[in-house]
Amino acid sequence: MSTFDTFVSAYGPISKVDAYGFLDSLAADSANSAAASTSTGAAVPRKHGKVVLVTADTPLKASRGEGKTTATVALTDALRARGIDATAVLRQPSMGITAAGSKGGASGGGKASLKNAELADWGLFGEMMRIATAQNLIVSLAEKALEEGKLTEILLPRVSEVPSKALRKIAVAGGNIPEKCVLSPTSEMMQIVTLSKSMDELATRIGAMIVGTLNGKPVKASELTDVERIVTVLGDAVQPAVLETEQGSPIYMHCGPFANVSIGIPSLVSVEMACARHDIVFVEAGYGADMGAQKWLDIASREFGAQWPVAAIVVTRASTWRDDPSLQWRYPFHIQRLENVGIPSFPLLNLWEGEDDQVPSLRAHAKEQGFREPIAGNLFRDGSEALVSQLDEFVETVSASSAADLAAKVPASTAGQGVMGKLKEIIAESYGVPADRVMEKESFTPSLAAAAKMASLSGFSVNDLAVVPVKSPATMTDDDTAEATRRTVTLKKVEIHAGAGLLHVNLTTSLTTAMPKIV
Amino acid sequence: MSTFDTFVSAYGPISKVDAYGFLDSLAADSANSAAASTSTGAAVPRKHGKVVLVTADTPLKASRGEGKTTATVALTDALRARGIDATAVLRQPSMGITAAGSKGGASGGGKASLKNAELADWGLFGEMMRIATAQNLIVSLAEKALEEGKLTEILLPRVSEVPSKALRKIAVAGGNIPEKCVLSPTSEMMQIVTLSKSMDELATRIGAMIVGTLNGKPVKASELTDVERIVTVLGDAVQPAVLETEQGSPIYMHCGPFANVSIGIPSLVSVEMACARHDIVFVEAGYGADMGAQKWLDIASREFGAQWPVAAIVVTRASTWRDDPSLQWRYPFHIQRLENVGIPSFPLLNLWEGEDDQVPSLRAHAKEQGFREPIAGNLFRDGSEALVSQLDEFVETVSASSAADLAAKVPASTAGQGVMGKLKEIIAESYGVPADRVMEKESFTPSLAAAAKMASLSGFSVNDLAVVPVKSPATMTDDDTAEATRRTVTLKKVEIHAGAGLLHVNLTTSLTTAMPKIV
Repeated sequence: MSTFDTFVSAYGPISKVDAYGFLDSLAADSANSAAASTSTGAAVPRKHGKVVLVTADTPLKASRGEGKTTATVALTDALRARGIDATAVLRQPSMGITAAGSKGGASGGGKASLKNAELADWGLFGEMMRIATAQNLIVSLAEKALEEGKLTEILLPRVSEVPSKALRKIAVAGGNIPEKCVLSPTSEMMQIVTLSKSMDELATRIGAMIVGTLNGKPVKASELTDVERIVTVLGDAVQPAVLETEQGSPIYMHCGPFANVSIGIPSLVSVEMACARHDIVFVEAGYGADMGAQKWLDIASREFGAQWPVAAIVVTRASTWRDDPSLQWRYPFHIQRLENVGIPSFPLLNLWEGEDDQVPSLRAHAKEQGFREPIAGNLFRDGSEALVSQLDEFVETVSASSAADLAAKVPASTAGQGVMGKLKEIIAESYGVPADRVMEKESFTPSLAAAAKMASLSGFSVNDLAVVPVKSPATMTDDDTAEATRRTVTLKKVEIHAGAGLLHVNLTTSLTTAMPKIV
Repeated sequence: MSTFDTFVSAYGPISKVDAYGFLDSLAADSANSAAASTSTGAAVPRKHGKVVLVTADTPLKASRGEGKTTATVALTDALRARGIDATAVLRQPSMGITAAGSKGGASGGGKASLKNAELADWGLFGEMMRIATAQNLIVSLAEKALEEGKLTEILLPRVSEVPSKALRKIAVAGGNIPEKCVLSPTSEMMQIVTLSKSMDELATRIGAMIVGTLNGKPVKASELTDVERIVTVLGDAVQPAVLETEQGSPIYMHCGPFANVSIGIPSLVSVEMACARHDIVFVEAGYGADMGAQKWLDIASREFGAQWPVAAIVVTRASTWRDDPSLQWRYPFHIQRLENVGIPSFPLLNLWEGEDDQVPSLRAHAKEQGFREPIAGNLFRDGSEALVSQLDEFVETVSASSAADLAAKVPASTAGQGVMGKLKEIIAESYGVPADRVMEKESFTPSLAAAAKMASLSGFSVNDLAVVPVKSPATMTDDDTAEATRRTVTLKKVEIHAGAGLLHVNLTTSLTTAMPKIV
């Protein structure tokens, strides 16, 4: 066998990390000893890194990013160039979308790139495929249960990494029982992997997924199969990938994108692990702040124990911020919204070719708005070099907050509070629309009532779930071009993800097609 | 990063091998130097290992194996215990079927097991998932082409690793255009990976896949997309996995099962690579000899340049061979059929608990039939120990044939010959049914004519394709229990796999459901 060694290439610079094991060993260490070390006996002091959220302006359209990943890579490289042990935690790009050609990969660009970005762009960590297979296996078991009369309705959707119109409309039992199909990154299984912090939690959450109903009574995955089967299929999908930027900075990547139709944040274990090993941890959460930041703050931090960010970087392109007068309100809104909850928020202007001369006017504009001094640069062209000298205020700010300061800022969990109250708070804070302009489609109240009944029949309260707004990535309200006093948000329907502990609430602006177009 | 090393588990004992690169380096070496060495400069003499086919009796039902993998593992361990550099090339188990519970994994058992068999059983090399994703991406591109009027019909099926009844019947374009869905291991993409011996061949074959038609004219994958996209999605699915038996023998595993509905052989590159590194290479091909051996001989060796076997091991269970009098003819038929084409064929009796005392009567029975002396043992219980002392004749036989002897035995390619002639030859040789008892459903002639036209419109002749019978795994003829002189085989329809270079011919006994049941 050893003669083959030179041909064994595997994935070169890519590793997978057993994050659950790592966190377990940290827990054991801190239980055993005040001076923490890893369980291996090596004297590696545990760090207590701080999370910096990298989020963005609301993009003008879904297919156009502002450059969050490019900015995250450049920032990480820049801090390391300054001698600070920084890292970043990115989300897996959606291979289906990359392959479909409807969006670039999400792995930076130009001088702010990942090494072997193609491995991430094309799903070569296998994470999405395993997650899809695991959820599809449950659906196949549900079909069998349907045949055997143990189920009368299938609620859990099939999953496909590649978009397909055909899969929007599939049916079982001779075409009488409809099935849905969603993209892998938006699946409940992906949410469960994102939110679970141990194998036990993972198994419990999978078992609690509502697969369908039997004469109206919800049936859980644990009632249809040995959950261990599903955990086995997931395999190393629960392990974050570790890679590097072109400059050699360490980067973690785990779990899915799409904060518009799901939670869109990297896994909690990957962030927690990164914080134990590094001093500053950039966490990418988008599309815009109304999606990624909203979900990190309201779900990850508030409901699932993730760290409150010590600061935020809010990326925009000059054109997104300024070119459409009716949408210019959004960027200052996002920055103010984050500052309102005590998060120092730094504008980052991601310049494109030919925009360098706009910097003075952009800075003046930012000053008028009362922003902190913007960090600006052509990150694709110049990478971290564009940033190194601009980060004094940022570094100072990040250093000033203690872990206790941050913990004190986390709002109390909303578990147990009514869904409408939670929704109105999110909509006011994150979209700027007051409670009296939150509208409801006729379908909404019956949909919420049905969900409440379903939850109750499953042995929990719908109020225990964290609320996940599902909406267009390119708009925060029913019409963002309307005047501020006339903007509304309309609630359409809800959907329970019992395993993940989430309640999806579709706004009228949500994407109505389950599978995007291939281009 | 190095502090993480202890947490980086990846897949422990499993490696993936760049077989294409390895074969390229061998080719370069033999071009450069008579005394072959690897391109690394290390003095590793190239070996010229011989292929031993491990095949089996036709199983009594599809869900019951005779023990080919168990036998292959035990044989490999036994030869190595005798100081012979043996290895085996296995096929990937179908995770969907394992997960569905309708069949065990295909990774041996008891003392004749693979280390970390669960990684194989549960698809954890990721091969099947990548192959499914690659083919599904082409189908999604076809759906888009349909929308744009560049296609009026989709012929290439979707692929799912997990069985699903719902996926049997899907439709695009508002339900007007049907789509099919097949199991990953039976997909044309799997066949292409199995048969391709270089990246160039892989890309060419993918590009030549017929995706659908535009007003009756075939449209190839290369006309819909940059084939490079698809190759990229395949990733390391083209690389064989290298693992070990519990006794430490090296084992290769690559490509799919199901010789009843596909070719069901390991990849040609994995076998060729194993032959360059070891002296004896067991190649698993089943279900029974009427499927796996037929496909290895008639397709891999005769049409695609794979090595002619120096010997065959034909596995049976005592009960399969003897218990149903009306089916007792099959096992001697398989052995005689292989001996007829010059392959010394050794009966291997895979005993189950409580069957040890049957050995003398089984040996007597074998003698009556004119078999070579059977190799017998309870391989699950005793592993290779049961076999070591019984392999003298086998080793002698294998040593006696030279590479030139073997090459001389390969029949000339049938490329260019008529489909009916090829079919009748296969049916006579492998199923024992003469040409005058080959029947045709009414649908067959029009189906073959349509395929011939499709091929012609694509720029090749249907006669250039290798024929792949598609049938039930548990029967060789329309009714195996009929008297020998009354047995018939009925042809139903054909299907072109232009990329793989294969023509599927469904017999009336073929499985009519595209997706098996989940149990």
